[in-house]
Amino acid sequence: MERIAIDMDGVIADTTEQFFSFDERDFGKRRTLEEITGKPESVAFPRGKEYVRTKDFFRTAPVMKDSQNVLSALNKQYEMFIVSAATEFPLSLFEKHQWLQEHFPFITWQQMVFCGSKTIIDADIMIDDHFKNLDPFKGRTILFSQPHNLLLQSSKHQRVNSWKEVADILL
Amino acid sequence: MERIAIDMDGVIADTTEQFFSFDERDFGKRRTLEEITGKPESVAFPRGKEYVRTKDFFRTAPVMKDSQNVLSALNKQYEMFIVSAATEFPLSLFEKHQWLQEHFPFITWQQMVFCGSKTIIDADIMIDDHFKNLDPFKGRTILFSQPHNLLLQSSKHQRVNSWKEVADILL
Repeated sequence: MERIAIDMDGVIADTTEQFFSFDERDFGKRRTLEEITGKPESVAFPRGKEYVRTKDFFRTAPVMKDSQNVLSALNKQYEMFIVSAATEFPLSLFEKHQWLQEHFPFITWQQMVFCGSKTIIDADIMIDDHFKNLDPFKGRTILFSQPHNLLLQSSKHQRVNSWKEVADILL
Repeated sequence: MERIAIDMDGVIADTTEQFFSFDERDFGKRRTLEEITGKPESVAFPRGKEYVRTKDFFRTAPVMKDSQNVLSALNKQYEMFIVSAATEFPLSLFEKHQWLQEHFPFITWQQMVFCGSKTIIDADIMIDDHFKNLDPFKGRTILFSQPHNLLLQSSKHQRVNSWKEVADILL
């Protein structure tokens, strides 16, 4: 059974939408997709660095469309792990655990990994929205589209724009 | 540079001493080493399963003798990661992060991994007190002696009884 490592933020947790909504609350107007495309969240959203350290930012993030159904199916065909870079923000650790239990109750604690660097992860497939995680990975790499990575191209990583597309290639 | 994965509980955190002291507080008498040898903590200490879910159990665990000096040296010669099975006890995640920051301030968040199963860890060397973590590991395995593993023998894993012994073989 192939082992698959799936990222949280920007992949199953819609943290971009969470940034949009925190930012709109603070600045009174929703930014456009064009405005933030190609920029890291800490640049795209002036108070972004503060939001990720705010209580409940990760706990109340919306679920990415179709991710629950697709992960439920992947969980039957693959040895599935959720691998999230979380140790930079210690408060997020408990929140991410709770978020997974609420929205993905079929994922056990044995399948959760909260780390800093993902270079230590041994798997066959990785789904992530960051080149820094995909580039050093030895297995098959799937780049999940997010505004911050839309202007970057890669021949090594297969780009997907939705969980329906992931289902098409992996199920 | 070789990558080394080092366990927390029973290896750099003296959780056995923490069990002894919680147990003595509850039962009025310190158990002997003989009494607990060969038994998992949940059996050796009648309320052990409750302790690991108690606030501050992990946060206030003593530091294993000599571990700070040896890890500080290992950190210069190896790509070092702390890999702790923590997701079973979600409250422990933040506590373990804080504990590491207090007692091992030279360890960065990039070097921390909190997981459930360690089968996903890719490293050259693993130091752990549990056979379940060492057995499936592909690299070199070092078994850190703890009362629960003292009666078990293994030709695959190299047993060490202290951090001084680790220093002798790895530094």
